Amino acid sequence: MAKELVECVPNFSEGRRAEVVEALAEEIAGVPGVRVLDRQMDPDHNRAVITFAGQSEGVGEAAFRAVGRASQLIDMEHHRGEHPRIGATDVIPFVPLGETPMDRCVELARRVGRRIGEELQIPVYLYERAATRPDRRNLEDLRRGEYEGLKTAILSDPTRAPDFGPRRLHPRAGAVVVGARQPLIAFNVYLKTKDVGAAKAIARAIRTRGGSLPAVKALGFEIPHLGLVQVSMNLTDFHRTSLLTAYRAVAAQAEQQGVEISHSEIVGLVPLAAVADVTGQALRLEGFTPDQILERRLGE
Amino acid sequence: MAKELVECVPNFSEGRRAEVVEALAEEIAGVPGVRVLDRQMDPDHNRAVITFAGQSEGVGEAAFRAVGRASQLIDMEHHRGEHPRIGATDVIPFVPLGETPMDRCVELARRVGRRIGEELQIPVYLYERAATRPDRRNLEDLRRGEYEGLKTAILSDPTRAPDFGPRRLHPRAGAVVVGARQPLIAFNVYLKTKDVGAAKAIARAIRTRGGSLPAVKALGFEIPHLGLVQVSMNLTDFHRTSLLTAYRAVAAQAEQQGVEISHSEIVGLVPLAAVADVTGQALRLEGFTPDQILERRLGE
Repeated sequence: MAKELVECVPNFSEGRRAEVVEALAEEIAGVPGVRVLDRQMDPDHNRAVITFAGQSEGVGEAAFRAVGRASQLIDMEHHRGEHPRIGATDVIPFVPLGETPMDRCVELARRVGRRIGEELQIPVYLYERAATRPDRRNLEDLRRGEYEGLKTAILSDPTRAPDFGPRRLHPRAGAVVVGARQPLIAFNVYLKTKDVGAAKAIARAIRTRGGSLPAVKALGFEIPHLGLVQVSMNLTDFHRTSLLTAYRAVAAQAEQQGVEISHSEIVGLVPLAAVADVTGQALRLEGFTPDQILERRLGE
Repeated sequence: MAKELVECVPNFSEGRRAEVVEALAEEIAGVPGVRVLDRQMDPDHNRAVITFAGQSEGVGEAAFRAVGRASQLIDMEHHRGEHPRIGATDVIPFVPLGETPMDRCVELARRVGRRIGEELQIPVYLYERAATRPDRRNLEDLRRGEYEGLKTAILSDPTRAPDFGPRRLHPRAGAVVVGARQPLIAFNVYLKTKDVGAAKAIARAIRTRGGSLPAVKALGFEIPHLGLVQVSMNLTDFHRTSLLTAYRAVAAQAEQQGVEISHSEIVGLVPLAAVADVTGQALRLEGFTPDQILERRLGE
């Protein structure tokens, strides 16, 4: 397994023209040692997410090239979509994989951010772990007013001066948020009831905002075609709240409400360390590390 | 990740001369694409275990070369040790990893077995999944009488004629058992008591021989330096009894006995699929496969 493995999950403001997303993915895959793992397009949000990974240096280069290509292919003056956004490449999170330290991704975000600002003349805001100020940690705060509002705010409001690049939006590409964060895990638990109130109550009880668990976002949804309801979670730092801790918290709340769990699902990809964590916790293993996983030794 | 990944765990009748085990490991590592993952020497048993893996073809070649080298370096006429054995290379199990089907390992065992018999003139017995007769599945049965007893039995007893090679022991190397089996997982659960009777009773209740779980060997031991006792398990087919099923069976028995679990441990390596199984089972995941593990996509 690679020694400084980094994942990158850029969000682009294009979810309708497949050929544009294809061109962006090709730009990324053109960097040696970088592998595109997944791509998702959402036409309502008019937004695409490309997941790729590799050694930190190659991943940084691929992210930089993708921002350049997106600034040619996507014009924010004509972009409409439900999802809040401030740029053609809206946000670029770098995510440590394996044993890669978070600091490595913070450095990478700042280095790539500086290049985007200087070489592409697109203003860059650093967020989450790479943020330079506490009020820039949260992505939602950086997107306030969106592309349209930021156009004037960046000129007039000193708190909205970018970390790198010019203090005006790029005429087509807008601005970019660049940062570092832990891998995000999308984890849903389905309950054997049609009462969406139960799912919503459980979500409120366990999520970070107003509830009990750190690093957990949660909402309750109806899933009519299954005749079930769903507690839909995003685990934003599985080192703080593991999959099993989240599952057990939902199970405990469900029991209190007299509702049974049907099953659960992980949407998309999950880091090996998160799977190893569940194993260690479920079996009460002492001293267990992913290095004991046979296939991992083979790939080293 | 490689497409036809196979592990091989040969046992050699040498646990005291480190230079001999080193020479065998070098012979194995000399085959391109084969990686030595682990080696263990036991001076009391006078026995060594080398774990290696790679694509099936390379693994077969490496196993063959190691048998040849062992027949030069180890003389069974002078071998003494506690562990039962019939040859310089005592047993060669091929183990499917990842998506590799068991049949692939059965074919490999038979092909390598034939080469050992014909080219090295060492008699070969096929065992476990590669066995040609039901009475040859069990390794212990094939080792009856050990090297010393087999010397005459192979000549006189028609049930002990080898599957491949001459019907007499090799003058230095004896005979070899070759076969295919599932990965073996060494899993120990520690109990908060000094009463070894509790561990022994739990082991008896859950193991395949006389107990409840398939594909589980279990014994109870005292662990004086920890002030605990241990239920020591070998899971011989985690598809039949998973780590979590074994753990829960021990936990249920311990509860009945009023004994608390302290912790558990996996000794040595564990296949990714076994770790993914625990995760799926603990979280009641539907449709979860190791392909969702991010690092796995990178290695493909």
